[in-house]
Amino acid sequence: MALYVQKFGGTSVGSVERIKAVAEKVKGFRDAGHQVVVVVSAMSGETNRLIGLANDINDEPTPREMDMLVSTGEQVTISLLTMALHKLGVPATSYTGSQVGIMTDSAHTKARIQRIETEDMRQDLDDGQVAVVAGFQGVDEEGNITTLGRGGSDTTGVALAAALNADECQIYTDVDGVYTTDPRVCSRAQRLDTITVEEMLELASLGSKVLQIRAVEFAGKYNVPLRVLSSFQDGPGTLIVADSDKDEDSMEEPLISGIAFTANEAKLTLLNTPDVPGVASKILGPIADANIEIDMIVQNVAPAGDYTDFTFTVAKGDYKQTLKILEEQVLPALGEGEVKGDDKIAKVSLVGVGMRSHAGVASKMFRVLSEENINIRMVSTSEIKISVVVDEKHMELAVRALHQAFGLDKDDIESE
Amino acid sequence: MALYVQKFGGTSVGSVERIKAVAEKVKGFRDAGHQVVVVVSAMSGETNRLIGLANDINDEPTPREMDMLVSTGEQVTISLLTMALHKLGVPATSYTGSQVGIMTDSAHTKARIQRIETEDMRQDLDDGQVAVVAGFQGVDEEGNITTLGRGGSDTTGVALAAALNADECQIYTDVDGVYTTDPRVCSRAQRLDTITVEEMLELASLGSKVLQIRAVEFAGKYNVPLRVLSSFQDGPGTLIVADSDKDEDSMEEPLISGIAFTANEAKLTLLNTPDVPGVASKILGPIADANIEIDMIVQNVAPAGDYTDFTFTVAKGDYKQTLKILEEQVLPALGEGEVKGDDKIAKVSLVGVGMRSHAGVASKMFRVLSEENINIRMVSTSEIKISVVVDEKHMELAVRALHQAFGLDKDDIESE
Repeated sequence: MALYVQKFGGTSVGSVERIKAVAEKVKGFRDAGHQVVVVVSAMSGETNRLIGLANDINDEPTPREMDMLVSTGEQVTISLLTMALHKLGVPATSYTGSQVGIMTDSAHTKARIQRIETEDMRQDLDDGQVAVVAGFQGVDEEGNITTLGRGGSDTTGVALAAALNADECQIYTDVDGVYTTDPRVCSRAQRLDTITVEEMLELASLGSKVLQIRAVEFAGKYNVPLRVLSSFQDGPGTLIVADSDKDEDSMEEPLISGIAFTANEAKLTLLNTPDVPGVASKILGPIADANIEIDMIVQNVAPAGDYTDFTFTVAKGDYKQTLKILEEQVLPALGEGEVKGDDKIAKVSLVGVGMRSHAGVASKMFRVLSEENINIRMVSTSEIKISVVVDEKHMELAVRALHQAFGLDKDDIESE
Repeated sequence: MALYVQKFGGTSVGSVERIKAVAEKVKGFRDAGHQVVVVVSAMSGETNRLIGLANDINDEPTPREMDMLVSTGEQVTISLLTMALHKLGVPATSYTGSQVGIMTDSAHTKARIQRIETEDMRQDLDDGQVAVVAGFQGVDEEGNITTLGRGGSDTTGVALAAALNADECQIYTDVDGVYTTDPRVCSRAQRLDTITVEEMLELASLGSKVLQIRAVEFAGKYNVPLRVLSSFQDGPGTLIVADSDKDEDSMEEPLISGIAFTANEAKLTLLNTPDVPGVASKILGPIADANIEIDMIVQNVAPAGDYTDFTFTVAKGDYKQTLKILEEQVLPALGEGEVKGDDKIAKVSLVGVGMRSHAGVASKMFRVLSEENINIRMVSTSEIKISVVVDEKHMELAVRALHQAFGLDKDDIESE
């Protein structure tokens, strides 16, 4: 007998029929003798409907009232799913975040879980009940309803799994696992059986939006085995493991676990700026003040040593504003230099814990791209990741070439 | 400075525009220096939408899960109304039934309020806040969400007014008060300035569905001044007062306060049944067992004394089933007799506390109907009410003739 926490997102409970299908799935686990806690999101579209109502009334609703409003979305789902379980003869009880005792701080709309009171739920499980818990929400010490921010249902699932010391937290979604890269771009992409928390974090932040970063961090921190799998088809999904677990299991670590990419960034360069201490903060300070997030940063010092080229990337949506700040605030402050920008770029990243122990990943990456006549505009590296910026038009070609060259194509590892 | 509890029903908060209008109305009272607690229902249509979802999933949902589900309706409204108040610069806080401390028993879907914890709300009011409370819902001792049954928001309003010792509980609805009879049937019907709790109870149970009976009873029991008024137009509405208050105020009591009527009943008669002890329970027992509610009952003993005619009314929807029970169960048990039925009837009732001290109301009623050639099929009386059953086709004529004869027509009392 195992204890599973199973989280189903908005698409998985998006209609009466899908809620019934989720109930069937849960019943299967319970019939096999397992204890099950189910965490659900609001039915897809419901949260946006509620936000629309709020915005029609007040363009700046207070966070407390927003939480009061949107938390009804999950409350509807838990009751409907519990009714569906009852219909199948499965004893079940629904709980709001408040009722289950998910205690958070008071940072409405982005609250952090502080502790979970598991006693009642544990009793229910021991009594043979399925506990159906509203994701995404909690309650502060004063009894105010809080929410964990969008996508927070994943966090609820992992936090409950940690608090209950569950055998596995299963995140059901509309994909059947984590892939080596996006199958829409590379038809030979394949599902990974396992991936480390660290790799998952790099892939998630780079645009493989299977799981919320915060939930993965949480799983890593509390050592919760986390599995991503499909609501709509059977299959083992992808197990996200602590780094140590993976190192032990597989003798021959693949160099690269996956390739992430995004065309949603833009690049800005300040040419010929004086290379004096504090120049970077003079450039980036006004941008940070405008709440614009910066991703990659590269600085090259000119051979002569007096001047430097400073390049960084921002989200494409922030491109024009950033350009304006550089021209109107930064350049005058620096006294000299020139601004260049390019919003037709893409970032392609190789991710893998195997990189740590293998030299030559970067040089192989550059060679593969060069053979395809793809120019590299920027490079940035971390311990388990190498990212390059290329022209946007080369993005898909780069992904496919690297996917093959690093042995990720389906036929290279196994035939399915 | 007065403390008002104001309750707005589903139609009054049925759209974003109407929620904004309610906020304006509340602001007006607060600007005039009053303290305000607002109780709201779910937006019209929302509760039925939720029940529809439930029924698509489980034809017999458990009451606990139904309460979990439908209680979200009011939670949406309280947050939206609070946002609308904020938009107008009015400080306000929303509360679910659970948060405000409306403690009920555990009879899900028809829970009874046991106590209300008013401390937090009192503090809010003293701080200048408007408290916006979800109607219709509470919480039991174990923290389960309960509901008071449909229309229970009126009860929430009255209970809060009693607990806070409010100066008045104002029930905003889509009519501008309680009328002497339905203006759609009698164009000369007029709004009553005051009506007693007792009269209101008789009128409500007879089909003048302005207020929930339970809320009126509650108001009478706890001596809460209750006012019915329109959400959509200004006006004093109708004040529902304790009987003693009214007696003191008006020297010359009108005989009749209002005329209720319904065409939603059917009449059944057992002719020539043996007049022996226990015959009534033999007749009504099987009907009660089928959960059919009986309204009027009349029994005539034949002159010879051995046989009796037994007549009663049921809701029109129960007519066929009742007829079947009489023919298949009751007649065989009695051994002799005959069943007759008529579902083309109407009940017309005069209501007024003035009736107590004035003889002759019944005889005047019968004379008026006789002058219109309306046959009376049944009569039933209580201390402040006389009801007659007439043919359905005569209902409107009877109402208009009685309305005029008892001095209720607009021009007879005042010109508006």
